[in-house]
Amino acid sequence: MFHTEFGRISVTPGEICVIQRGVKFRVELLDERARGYICENYGALFRLPDLGPIGANGLANARDFETPVAAFEDADEPWRIVSKFQGQLWEAETDHSPLDVVAWHGNYAPYKYDLARFNCINSVTFDHPDPSIYTVLTSPSELPGTANCDFVVFPPRWMVAQQTLRPPWFHRNFMNEFMGLIRGQYDAKAEGFVPGGCSMHNCMAGHGPDAATYEKASTAELKPVKLDDTLAFMFETRFVCKPTKWALETADLQHDYYECWQGLKKHFDPKKR
Amino acid sequence: MFHTEFGRISVTPGEICVIQRGVKFRVELLDERARGYICENYGALFRLPDLGPIGANGLANARDFETPVAAFEDADEPWRIVSKFQGQLWEAETDHSPLDVVAWHGNYAPYKYDLARFNCINSVTFDHPDPSIYTVLTSPSELPGTANCDFVVFPPRWMVAQQTLRPPWFHRNFMNEFMGLIRGQYDAKAEGFVPGGCSMHNCMAGHGPDAATYEKASTAELKPVKLDDTLAFMFETRFVCKPTKWALETADLQHDYYECWQGLKKHFDPKKR
Amino acid sequence: MFHTEFGRISVTPGEICVIQRGVKFRVELLDERARGYICENYGALFRLPDLGPIGANGLANARDFETPVAAFEDADEPWRIVSKFQGQLWEAETDHSPLDVVAWHGNYAPYKYDLARFNCINSVTFDHPDPSIYTVLTSPSELPGTANCDFVVFPPRWMVAQQTLRPPWFHRNFMNEFMGLIRGQYDAKAEGFVPGGCSMHNCMAGHGPDAATYEKASTAELKPVKLDDTLAFMFETRFVCKPTKWALETADLQHDYYECWQGLKKHFDPKKR
Amino acid sequence: MFHTEFGRISVTPGEICVIQRGVKFRVELLDERARGYICENYGALFRLPDLGPIGANGLANARDFETPVAAFEDADEPWRIVSKFQGQLWEAETDHSPLDVVAWHGNYAPYKYDLARFNCINSVTFDHPDPSIYTVLTSPSELPGTANCDFVVFPPRWMVAQQTLRPPWFHRNFMNEFMGLIRGQYDAKAEGFVPGGCSMHNCMAGHGPDAATYEKASTAELKPVKLDDTLAFMFETRFVCKPTKWALETADLQHDYYECWQGLKKHFDPKKR
Amino acid sequence: MFHTEFGRISVTPGEICVIQRGVKFRVELLDERARGYICENYGALFRLPDLGPIGANGLANARDFETPVAAFEDADEPWRIVSKFQGQLWEAETDHSPLDVVAWHGNYAPYKYDLARFNCINSVTFDHPDPSIYTVLTSPSELPGTANCDFVVFPPRWMVAQQTLRPPWFHRNFMNEFMGLIRGQYDAKAEGFVPGGCSMHNCMAGHGPDAATYEKASTAELKPVKLDDTLAFMFETRFVCKPTKWALETADLQHDYYECWQGLKKHFDPKKR
Amino acid sequence: MFHTEFGRISVTPGEICVIQRGVKFRVELLDERARGYICENYGALFRLPDLGPIGANGLANARDFETPVAAFEDADEPWRIVSKFQGQLWEAETDHSPLDVVAWHGNYAPYKYDLARFNCINSVTFDHPDPSIYTVLTSPSELPGTANCDFVVFPPRWMVAQQTLRPPWFHRNFMNEFMGLIRGQYDAKAEGFVPGGCSMHNCMAGHGPDAATYEKASTAELKPVKLDDTLAFMFETRFVCKPTKWALETADLQHDYYECWQGLKKHFDPKKR
Repeated sequence: MFHTEFGRISVTPGEICVIQRGVKFRVELLDERARGYICENYGALFRLPDLGPIGANGLANARDFETPVAAFEDADEPWRIVSKFQGQLWEAETDHSPLDVVAWHGNYAPYKYDLARFNCINSVTFDHPDPSIYTVLTSPSELPGTANCDFVVFPPRWMVAQQTLRPPWFHRNFMNEFMGLIRGQYDAKAEGFVPGGCSMHNCMAGHGPDAATYEKASTAELKPVKLDDTLAFMFETRFVCKPTKWALETADLQHDYYECWQGLKKHFDPKKR
Repeated sequence: MFHTEFGRISVTPGEICVIQRGVKFRVELLDERARGYICENYGALFRLPDLGPIGANGLANARDFETPVAAFEDADEPWRIVSKFQGQLWEAETDHSPLDVVAWHGNYAPYKYDLARFNCINSVTFDHPDPSIYTVLTSPSELPGTANCDFVVFPPRWMVAQQTLRPPWFHRNFMNEFMGLIRGQYDAKAEGFVPGGCSMHNCMAGHGPDAATYEKASTAELKPVKLDDTLAFMFETRFVCKPTKWALETADLQHDYYECWQGLKKHFDPKKR
Repeated sequence: MFHTEFGRISVTPGEICVIQRGVKFRVELLDERARGYICENYGALFRLPDLGPIGANGLANARDFETPVAAFEDADEPWRIVSKFQGQLWEAETDHSPLDVVAWHGNYAPYKYDLARFNCINSVTFDHPDPSIYTVLTSPSELPGTANCDFVVFPPRWMVAQQTLRPPWFHRNFMNEFMGLIRGQYDAKAEGFVPGGCSMHNCMAGHGPDAATYEKASTAELKPVKLDDTLAFMFETRFVCKPTKWALETADLQHDYYECWQGLKKHFDPKKR
Repeated sequence: MFHTEFGRISVTPGEICVIQRGVKFRVELLDERARGYICENYGALFRLPDLGPIGANGLANARDFETPVAAFEDADEPWRIVSKFQGQLWEAETDHSPLDVVAWHGNYAPYKYDLARFNCINSVTFDHPDPSIYTVLTSPSELPGTANCDFVVFPPRWMVAQQTLRPPWFHRNFMNEFMGLIRGQYDAKAEGFVPGGCSMHNCMAGHGPDAATYEKASTAELKPVKLDDTLAFMFETRFVCKPTKWALETADLQHDYYECWQGLKKHFDPKKR
Repeated sequence: MFHTEFGRISVTPGEICVIQRGVKFRVELLDERARGYICENYGALFRLPDLGPIGANGLANARDFETPVAAFEDADEPWRIVSKFQGQLWEAETDHSPLDVVAWHGNYAPYKYDLARFNCINSVTFDHPDPSIYTVLTSPSELPGTANCDFVVFPPRWMVAQQTLRPPWFHRNFMNEFMGLIRGQYDAKAEGFVPGGCSMHNCMAGHGPDAATYEKASTAELKPVKLDDTLAFMFETRFVCKPTKWALETADLQHDYYECWQGLKKHFDPKKR
Repeated sequence: MFHTEFGRISVTPGEICVIQRGVKFRVELLDERARGYICENYGALFRLPDLGPIGANGLANARDFETPVAAFEDADEPWRIVSKFQGQLWEAETDHSPLDVVAWHGNYAPYKYDLARFNCINSVTFDHPDPSIYTVLTSPSELPGTANCDFVVFPPRWMVAQQTLRPPWFHRNFMNEFMGLIRGQYDAKAEGFVPGGCSMHNCMAGHGPDAATYEKASTAELKPVKLDDTLAFMFETRFVCKPTKWALETADLQHDYYECWQGLKKHFDPKKR
């Protein structure tokens, strides 16, 4: 539950919440613990991507984003306000709650969105489109095609492509990819990627399905398959992601992550071509 | 078989051929008869649509368009050249074949494309994207979103959308739609639309699935379905299409076309809301 | 009162109503007679102008445009539908009201706007901005600066410019101007322009304040003045306006309109410069 | 008095002078002391803003910017040239004046502008436009709406808005604001902002009229008022402004600046709504 | 000599004069006869082309365009004003000269340009750039690359390209070309194109050097050559040019124009490739 | 010889080779030593510049860029891979060659270009265009006109400009210029610039022909001259170039470089104007 200057936003698992730069808010946990992923955006505001030939509807629809109505606190008590400015945290004290906005008008407001409403679009013939087709929100940069940050989601969906290796391709690329798994299983990793975990592939670091996934996908019959128990996401950004000291030292770090690809075998025989 | 100034293009059913304005050509039938659809484009050159979030590949891929190599005739015999200029046909005689180009370089060349290579993309969750998602080639106008002519194709594909009426919606719109059926059956008309036929819905003329299609689609179980035996296309243009005198007088004109919607019933009961 | 497919819009004097191309509607007069001005727009949809340095608010504010909720008729009776297509009127009969839309979603909807909410902006120092500063809605063309049609309004406002002839300038220009007066008096015509009337100045036809207005404005003390009893508007378009036969033959046509400028005198003496 | 490579520019209080990057110049004081404000622009060249609906004239008019004619020194004496390069100052000696340009042609020249010629435009009905309406010159960034630096001026002007709190609003925003007062009084601060002073409100730091100004403006009769004795300006920039050590330690620093808002009272009674 | 509302422009052979739409003018011949070419532009104003990699100077330089100062007539005598409106000529009588403008400010003014000042740029290595490299002024259309009208000039210049057929290529193209010869000889026609004459090649009509020019250019030694006695021009437009009845019936019409290419011979021997 | 993941590229003197970011390659010298210039591009991909009025061909033509076909190594031996990431070099070991790509499709591939194929365009009348007219490839920035890096070449070419000082002008400018000489002599430096050398003129550092070049060019007869024995190039970039410690300490550094301009004399006599 976020109590913001613009009102209250209650967020459940599978929903995302965007709070604009400079907006004051307080987080209230409904249970003893809550976990989630956070992205701090230093660039342009997140917005819906242009849809191009997808047309007038599709992907995340504007009507499904929800903005709160004003909800004020009339509390003349001591408060502490913490803000981040130029990369450092600052603290101020006031004698009343800053969440005292009685009414508001405008468009610079926080919002939430339920990822289950994402209208996922993909190949219904063959091949495997770019992950940009999973874009929920984009923070563009001044260079078209090089987003400050794309927020991309891999939701429950049908897989029907024929004559195609259905999991994500092996690739390396200019953008930096931070992935997380919200629920279920991710279709490029047969094991080792659990809900609440994250993976990181920086600029030009090659990656793709693990050996077990590759074997299974290469030999599977290509019937329509509903990926049902899954909800993964990616922050794809032009900035190289640098793990914190905590992340590098945690016992949960998978030092053997690269081994998931070691089992991949050579299939091409130069003598036979 | 088209013999153009740039070389020879052999076209089979299911393929399209684009010959640029001003390029001389001769058509040679391989059988006694051949039938097809022709669109004369008065506007910008056809090009691939921008793909937006679809990314770097998808829909019609550039690599699948084929351009001929030069093929010249060294024929010093009388020839007749017919050209259209300012809406009228003109004829000239020469003493040698104009198809005498020995080599060429450039990009203003005719090409062909096999519609079976179209990477069709669509909803893999729910809902029904705009027909723009079927765009093969577009001749844009100076107004974004208002094409001079979009060439759109409805190829064999999987239908998997849940909680959705799968056939095209009922709609009326600003653009003018000319459809043809190349092979099989079109999924919005249970009957009456045969290969070689065409339908025309001009600006703001309402249309959609016929009553039989609607009934069937409303009650069908929404399993994955492969539409296999189908290949329909549409020219969607900002210009109102005007049938010729021949078209209006032919015995094949379906005077009762509007009746396909007469069986649609009222399902909403205002007293019950 | 407009009953449209999207719902009912009740319009009073001083309000405007925009109905999109292709939307069916019925007009119901609340009194025995009603008068107004109509503009049929063949080009791009009317939209708010970009505000440039005016910033995030000003002129007509988006929040003041009102769109109806659905309002359906469940009437199984004979109806006549008249539509304009390719410059001609066509008529169809149906056995039920077409205004039977039970609910709708989208943005191609009719709307109304009360001109009293126009936030008029102008010089607060000296000089006289272009009439574009009075733009309520614009239908742009593909040429920036050459609108298909600008709808411009001259509402009640303060006049405070110093060292300035405050009425509109004498000018001739590329655009074609059709003006009407909704209420009160227009500040460039001391007499002869009455509510319900209209004036027309086509491409490169010079015009400006009449002689009486000029004399008065040249000698007036430049105190702040509130123009209160006035509401004039202009359709400014790149298309030359052609009056109908009726307009050219009506007894109300002001054949002596050009005489309003005949009293303007020469004030420059070449011998004295 | 600036003696530049392009000629001499004499600047009086109320005028601004822009010298392009890399142009050599010498400042000659006409009195013993002179004071002013300096902005060093690291980004795009300052230019006039696009005027949008304001039209073809308004704000600062191009014709009022004055560029010098060439004025050379034929001085074979030792000279010292100081330049800033990569954030540091460098010094060179020459045996002749570098201000020896005999004639020039081009558009990369220094210029001056008299702020009294600014055609200020504002509301003549109600409300309070954004400060962008006061823009004299803008150095845009690659992000539309996020200037590298806007130079904005608050000159003598009429205030006529009805039903409006006329001083600048209370706000916090993404841009960083550095203000100075050239002459008279600034309408958002009843006291404490003197000519030659400056105020600074960085990114997301809330600010607005002081308590005294607010009280007065809330209860004043809204007659036309001429703000005559005033000339304030603002550099509005996307870069956070960092005061120098000198500025933070000067005795003139107003440590109690924030107290100007402490007198603002709560006016909303939640029990009465 | 043009006496316009903006002042007097005296034009000599080799100069061009542009008078904006709607500006009143009177032509005064200095000799008994004068001849020239006229282009009536229905589209966007002529402007200098963007120079692309040519940089900040080149082709026609802005500084060489000359605009008159005001020159008024104080003549209280009867005058006749003729104007063209909607394709027809209209006449009005006034009792004083309309060329009575005492001073003016703005940028919608007539101007002249001496074609001898054109900085012609071309290949200094090999090959033959497009005629767009000779553009003096362009009236663009809403379609980039498809000008409403380009005014192109072929002035005295050096020809130095190696391994190249130096005259204009054989080509046919989408644009329509109207050429005239102001002085000397045109390098694609050895004979038959005289000063004061004109040639016309409409959309997709093939053309190029005549047979004599081709023979000479194919065998010439490729030394640097100064084309000195020449000044040809072209109006290149997207609109098909239609000759008047007078032009089609004049005795000067070259009915045998096409014969200039009849002498071109086949040089390729398919048996030898 | 570059062996890249995309295949082998053999480069000879006078050719350039571009390898995209992230592509693995190995350099194999064909002789014992090889020398060349390297530019590491941190910004947008190099591409051909827009040609503006130069038209559809010219400067470097797309058809002359050569891309390799796949060439794989099937080598199961230890390999060391070195890559640069975030400004530092990293090393990895593998048990097989990474240059094992069997086939590829796409456009992110390395290429080479022979500078002798550059179609150099320049003045054929008078004056001296900007060096942008020599652009082979450009890596644009988000600011039009301010390239991340332009690669510019001064190849063999004809010089024919009349009434013009033919060597490059004296200038200082915003961009930073790094020049090298591949072969022969550079036309702005009579001596001291040798093949394999380089010169560097950073932002706003004035430069131009040396005194000897100036004297010679000022008095030379302006006949057509073929610059034959020359091939110089420039990296023109918005980033200030900083020499390495090695470069500043090498014995080859020309400490007296600035003296090449010391001999330039004053030619203007203020008393005589």
